[in-house]
Amino acid sequence: MEQTETVSAGPAGGGTSRRTLLGRTLGAAGVVAAAGGAGYGVARAAGSADTAAPAASTSDLVGFYGTHQGGIATPAQDRLAFAAFDVTSTSATDLQVMLGTWAAAAAQMTRGLPIGAVETDPQAPPIDTGEADGLGASSLTVTVGFGPGLFDDRFGLADKRPAALADLPTLPGDGSLQQARSGGDLCVQACADDPTVAFHVIRNFARLARGTAVIRWSQLGFGRTSSTSTAQQTERNLMGFKDGTRNIKGEDAADLDDYVWVGRETDQAWMRGGSYLVARRIRMLIESWDTDFLSDQENVFGRYKTSGAPLGGKNEFDTPDLAAKGTDGKPVIPLNAHIRLASPSTNNNQKILRRGYSYTDGIDADTGLLDAGLFFLAYQKDPRRQFVPIQQKLGQQDGLNEYIRHTGSALFAVPPGLSAAGDWWGKALFA
Amino acid sequence: MEQTETVSAGPAGGGTSRRTLLGRTLGAAGVVAAAGGAGYGVARAAGSADTAAPAASTSDLVGFYGTHQGGIATPAQDRLAFAAFDVTSTSATDLQVMLGTWAAAAAQMTRGLPIGAVETDPQAPPIDTGEADGLGASSLTVTVGFGPGLFDDRFGLADKRPAALADLPTLPGDGSLQQARSGGDLCVQACADDPTVAFHVIRNFARLARGTAVIRWSQLGFGRTSSTSTAQQTERNLMGFKDGTRNIKGEDAADLDDYVWVGRETDQAWMRGGSYLVARRIRMLIESWDTDFLSDQENVFGRYKTSGAPLGGKNEFDTPDLAAKGTDGKPVIPLNAHIRLASPSTNNNQKILRRGYSYTDGIDADTGLLDAGLFFLAYQKDPRRQFVPIQQKLGQQDGLNEYIRHTGSALFAVPPGLSAAGDWWGKALFA
Repeated sequence: MEQTETVSAGPAGGGTSRRTLLGRTLGAAGVVAAAGGAGYGVARAAGSADTAAPAASTSDLVGFYGTHQGGIATPAQDRLAFAAFDVTSTSATDLQVMLGTWAAAAAQMTRGLPIGAVETDPQAPPIDTGEADGLGASSLTVTVGFGPGLFDDRFGLADKRPAALADLPTLPGDGSLQQARSGGDLCVQACADDPTVAFHVIRNFARLARGTAVIRWSQLGFGRTSSTSTAQQTERNLMGFKDGTRNIKGEDAADLDDYVWVGRETDQAWMRGGSYLVARRIRMLIESWDTDFLSDQENVFGRYKTSGAPLGGKNEFDTPDLAAKGTDGKPVIPLNAHIRLASPSTNNNQKILRRGYSYTDGIDADTGLLDAGLFFLAYQKDPRRQFVPIQQKLGQQDGLNEYIRHTGSALFAVPPGLSAAGDWWGKALFA
Repeated sequence: MEQTETVSAGPAGGGTSRRTLLGRTLGAAGVVAAAGGAGYGVARAAGSADTAAPAASTSDLVGFYGTHQGGIATPAQDRLAFAAFDVTSTSATDLQVMLGTWAAAAAQMTRGLPIGAVETDPQAPPIDTGEADGLGASSLTVTVGFGPGLFDDRFGLADKRPAALADLPTLPGDGSLQQARSGGDLCVQACADDPTVAFHVIRNFARLARGTAVIRWSQLGFGRTSSTSTAQQTERNLMGFKDGTRNIKGEDAADLDDYVWVGRETDQAWMRGGSYLVARRIRMLIESWDTDFLSDQENVFGRYKTSGAPLGGKNEFDTPDLAAKGTDGKPVIPLNAHIRLASPSTNNNQKILRRGYSYTDGIDADTGLLDAGLFFLAYQKDPRRQFVPIQQKLGQQDGLNEYIRHTGSALFAVPPGLSAAGDWWGKALFA
């Protein structure tokens, strides 16, 4: 077999390949213009993408364009592929081209279509990598965010940094954070009901980024633990407890406006309709947890394990009675119970929208224990008033701390949704 | 919160906890006897497991007992959790007790039930970890195998080692194998249509193993790439190609008898009805692959990318015409094409039953490239005549070698199915 092209992982070698790919894909027109003009820029310019894929059924489609990005208030899909990227080019144009290309590609993929034809030119690499061919849209959403680093002096965006994108302070329990699992200039959250469809996004975005950005870290989430719709049942986390019973649901427009979507209060107009994402990789010490007595486990969460009802309650959705005391005079829901400390009533009535996924990444080489837990994703209007103070409280007092370690942390400004074909992530930011 | 018990990962500290757990679970009777007598030993002895779980629907149940273990000829489920264990106890009784406990637990889980009641005793750890509660059976199969190391001098099994369980020789391309992803005294393959249901098995088996065995390595497979039933469509691997078109199907009893199930030819009667599993973690250099031209990719596999038809053919299931030559006089299917080299006609008419899954484990810290590929599982009657000679040929000549690295390797003797409640993995081996 003849090898005709090689690609290096770094920005120097990759630049040419990416541009070659874009050139093939989009012809002479710049990708931003093409994405702007064509709607499905990547595929339209390439020609025959639609012939290579089965027609997607509409039942598993989540609309790509809208006021807000999908993948936040969308009913949480079953599977997650997530990646943080570092921008390696210092050219703002490179970055814009990449973001425009990503938008065009995402518009295709969320419709269940390849980003470009697989079989256009035998003497060129296929435009889509092909592994998701035939799997449909699977309710795919693609959500992109901007990390604090994007607003340094590289791209002329220093004046555009929102105050709410303040670096997270050092929080109690941050001692186990790993740099290699933290931070990033950009993030991509791909959620779908099929894991190959989700992974396909990360893999193709990494490819389209070649020469401009590289993956800094990535995380696969194998099963959702949060419900974000009243139509969904509450799933269990790897501690066996129902998680997110009191989560904000996509049907609750008032909560979304109050706690999730950035509004007129922002100092940066380009963020209106957006949100802020805090991602935390929370390892659970499950071997230790599994030896804990049932009553202790229930006291840690403040819920009954099987039913999910708050201690003292009967049903999962009963409002926790934080004032209730037992016959011994002690609180029925302990003072350090997770649901007490995370409760809005304990946190100046603040809430966050959670989209957590269980993960497992094999075993910890140092200990032989399973490296598994919760990849915690929380969307909010302003982390300074939501995640940060809540985690300051939880990190100090939560009974769960004995059984968890925060091993990764990242913060992203998630811009509003793309309005229509031609819009792209960051268009208003760079305007 | 009061912590009442701690568990170490090692055998010394863990032994007590495991026995305590078993004691609680099974009372005074030995677990092997209990599993033998009760059928769902773990749960029956514990009491009320059935009340904690929803009734499993029969449509997603794969029968646990039978001539052969499930998870081999069973239609390949969508998700995989796999682990290799090393036995840390030198007591054959410990090992037998663990295997009996595993059998009792698997009988429960494959019915969609917890391994024991979650809410029996507040002052004891829950018997089931609970995360799969409510998810049903999800077509779960649990398949257990014995590695070569089990037949060393620790457990008195040296005379029981089958000749077909000969250590794999060093094969071409083995230079990238990692010890930490290879080998193991035991393996557990959990396949299900829900990943949490599959992971639940590995996690609870690790817990039940405490003091006797520890996980050596584990692997999550997020999407199946092999079909093992005529009712299944052929999925694509992460190279975008349909994989396993010519795989052995569970409906083909003659092929199963000829190539998969151990028969009277074995030197070890306890293996009759069993099979041999070769597991290979095959990383794909997808960034490099993605830059390869379509025609090269198709020549590497010997198939068209979209349709999956063999080169020169029209439909996926057309028999490859290995003799066909083009107008240029060259073979239509190149001499180093994967399907030619892996074809039964090129391999003394040998076949293997494949059950591969796509994996991704984040990025390679050394290169920043995605660590993703195929977790290859192949079942066969005798690796010495099947996997080994096939891989000797592929490892030397296959055009794919440029784009793949074998990073893990393991071999297991997979005993026959459990006959009924009371049977357990290895009962005949230890008899």
